[in-house]
Amino acid sequence: MSQTQGTTGLRGIAVGETAISTVGKEGKGLTYRGYDIEELAKNCIFEEVAYLLLYGRLPTQTELSAYQSKLQRMRALPEALKIVLEQIPAQAHPMDVMRTGCSVLGTLEPELEFAQQIDIANRLLSLFPAILCYWYRYTTDGSRISTNTDTDDIAGHFLHMLHLPGSDKLHSIFQQCLNASLILYAEHEFNASTFACRVSAATLTDFYSAITAGIGTLRGPLHGGANEAAMAMIEQLAYLKNLAEVEKTVLNWLSSKQKIMGFGHAVYKHSDPRNSVIKAWAKQLSDFAGDAQRYYEISEVVEKVMWEQKKLFPNLDFYSASAYHFMGIPTALFTPLFVMARVSGWSAHIIEQRAHNKLIRPSADYIGEERRAFVPIEQRIDSWS
Amino acid sequence: MSQTQGTTGLRGIAVGETAISTVGKEGKGLTYRGYDIEELAKNCIFEEVAYLLLYGRLPTQTELSAYQSKLQRMRALPEALKIVLEQIPAQAHPMDVMRTGCSVLGTLEPELEFAQQIDIANRLLSLFPAILCYWYRYTTDGSRISTNTDTDDIAGHFLHMLHLPGSDKLHSIFQQCLNASLILYAEHEFNASTFACRVSAATLTDFYSAITAGIGTLRGPLHGGANEAAMAMIEQLAYLKNLAEVEKTVLNWLSSKQKIMGFGHAVYKHSDPRNSVIKAWAKQLSDFAGDAQRYYEISEVVEKVMWEQKKLFPNLDFYSASAYHFMGIPTALFTPLFVMARVSGWSAHIIEQRAHNKLIRPSADYIGEERRAFVPIEQRIDSWS
Repeated sequence: MSQTQGTTGLRGIAVGETAISTVGKEGKGLTYRGYDIEELAKNCIFEEVAYLLLYGRLPTQTELSAYQSKLQRMRALPEALKIVLEQIPAQAHPMDVMRTGCSVLGTLEPELEFAQQIDIANRLLSLFPAILCYWYRYTTDGSRISTNTDTDDIAGHFLHMLHLPGSDKLHSIFQQCLNASLILYAEHEFNASTFACRVSAATLTDFYSAITAGIGTLRGPLHGGANEAAMAMIEQLAYLKNLAEVEKTVLNWLSSKQKIMGFGHAVYKHSDPRNSVIKAWAKQLSDFAGDAQRYYEISEVVEKVMWEQKKLFPNLDFYSASAYHFMGIPTALFTPLFVMARVSGWSAHIIEQRAHNKLIRPSADYIGEERRAFVPIEQRIDSWS
Repeated sequence: MSQTQGTTGLRGIAVGETAISTVGKEGKGLTYRGYDIEELAKNCIFEEVAYLLLYGRLPTQTELSAYQSKLQRMRALPEALKIVLEQIPAQAHPMDVMRTGCSVLGTLEPELEFAQQIDIANRLLSLFPAILCYWYRYTTDGSRISTNTDTDDIAGHFLHMLHLPGSDKLHSIFQQCLNASLILYAEHEFNASTFACRVSAATLTDFYSAITAGIGTLRGPLHGGANEAAMAMIEQLAYLKNLAEVEKTVLNWLSSKQKIMGFGHAVYKHSDPRNSVIKAWAKQLSDFAGDAQRYYEISEVVEKVMWEQKKLFPNLDFYSASAYHFMGIPTALFTPLFVMARVSGWSAHIIEQRAHNKLIRPSADYIGEERRAFVPIEQRIDSWS
């Protein structure tokens, strides 16, 4: 490798060390702290995995219960933060709400010393669902919801705040699926948003600044925005008469080089190990919740065409889209759900970066103007450049 | 170079291309768009250099006047943003105010398409002084200031909002020095905060998210926080009886391995080309404003000891500290001033990144647990790990 990574986006270049996860490493697949992702997603609740990422080992039942109680006691929004959330218009991007909520919290409950870092990570885990739902409900139905629900996990807490009590979307099957999804989204090594967190943390800035950088970075359509784009595509395909039309349309898109969202991956080459779990959940929820618009079948057709034509596999985002939809979650809230999950991984990485810190300050190849003589303003003429 | 950058923090590794500036390149020194930094800092106002960074060339007088008028018309804070700023406590870190102000503005005036990017960069250039001063004045003297001053440059606009009319701190010499300082802080290649902006922008996120990442990253003491730390040190030394005591104290600090802020640089090896300009200003302001606490002389003693003992030279942050102090700027606002300047460079880099975008997604070397078998929660025992 030359001194120049030029325009490769550092793809495949190890820029640091981590003990948190492996992504697609030879013979390892995706593991969190050494545990296989499928086993975690099938057997744990999200808090169990957040505990694993933050504290390095799986909790006992006693530890998990204590951890859940601790998180439950951290669910109240400060009054000043509520006032801020009420200033954000209904048309705002929900990711901008998450980014702002995190930044404001940093002014109200600042990190004065790094010894507070785990408490802040836990507070954010606990508060992100509240930040999102308080703003969402205030701007959609005008209610100022209480964020102190008595549901004992984050997944149920979120669904409870999002949907009115009595809603048919408050089923335990949705809660289970959301737990699995949060686990699948929790951590993914040096992806762009996590790397942004580490670049930020490496100046020894505060915890909230680093997480805020992660949220803003995740917001991009080349990163966290993919499940929303997949949903929009599936909704568009659902207007067609039948599955044969769906297949024809996807083929047309491919031949006109249109980008199909939710397929392939920067690191995985053959399949996304998270896909089988979320796909099974999408199927189960489509059966349970009813799927009048045939979103699940449509998704399978897209998957088939993408494989046959491009040898591209669905990544986590693709079936997450319909699974979230079956739970009655508005599409605009998909990426904020990613934040609620990934804050566990980001936090683990910030803590790890701080423990062995080195400022991340690369260089660039200069391709600009050669040195030029300064021209005083009165001698500059309109046509010069 | 191996595939692993391990724990080097990417020092000296070119991770992309830029046409914006050169930092310490052989025979080039520090140039913005090809122009030597000293010439720019001595001959231009800040808006002239912001124009150069954003549009690629120095403006004619007609263009500069039009640009200044345009920026002047963008100085009003949205009402919702004022309400948010009033929620932020007086004890908050002013950098958290800047980060939050930027994030909130992104919800109120979102970037709906990249064609808006230059307008947003200009809006931020225009609004950051207002965000800071509105919050600062509201939380210190309770006033809700107007941010529509009639001063025609950003430096004067800031000083005017910060100090009450009639203050002895509203001199044109301060305005000139602040212009030079903003120019010196405007741009510096792939430093940590700019790199954070580019990592964020590379997911094709919105402009505000990328700038917010930059602010949070600059906040760290290993980056933008250095001038505040230098000021605190100089203030501490001013309590000593005489300059001989100052010298003795700095020698003691060195022998006890205490870190002296404001010296040396990650990239520059022999001197910081920005230092001579700001040092001359610090001297001039100490003569003009009076320097009862001998801050300038103390600074020179520190500089002498650091060079004799460690062959370390003052960087931009060191004399910026006393220069800002002589202008009556509170120390806590030093790093936010860096934001007001650097937003020009950050913006130029975001625009450049978008023009030739590639997702920045590196890898990591895994040093964690080997694959381990999942243990169901009821089988976990308290002593296992």
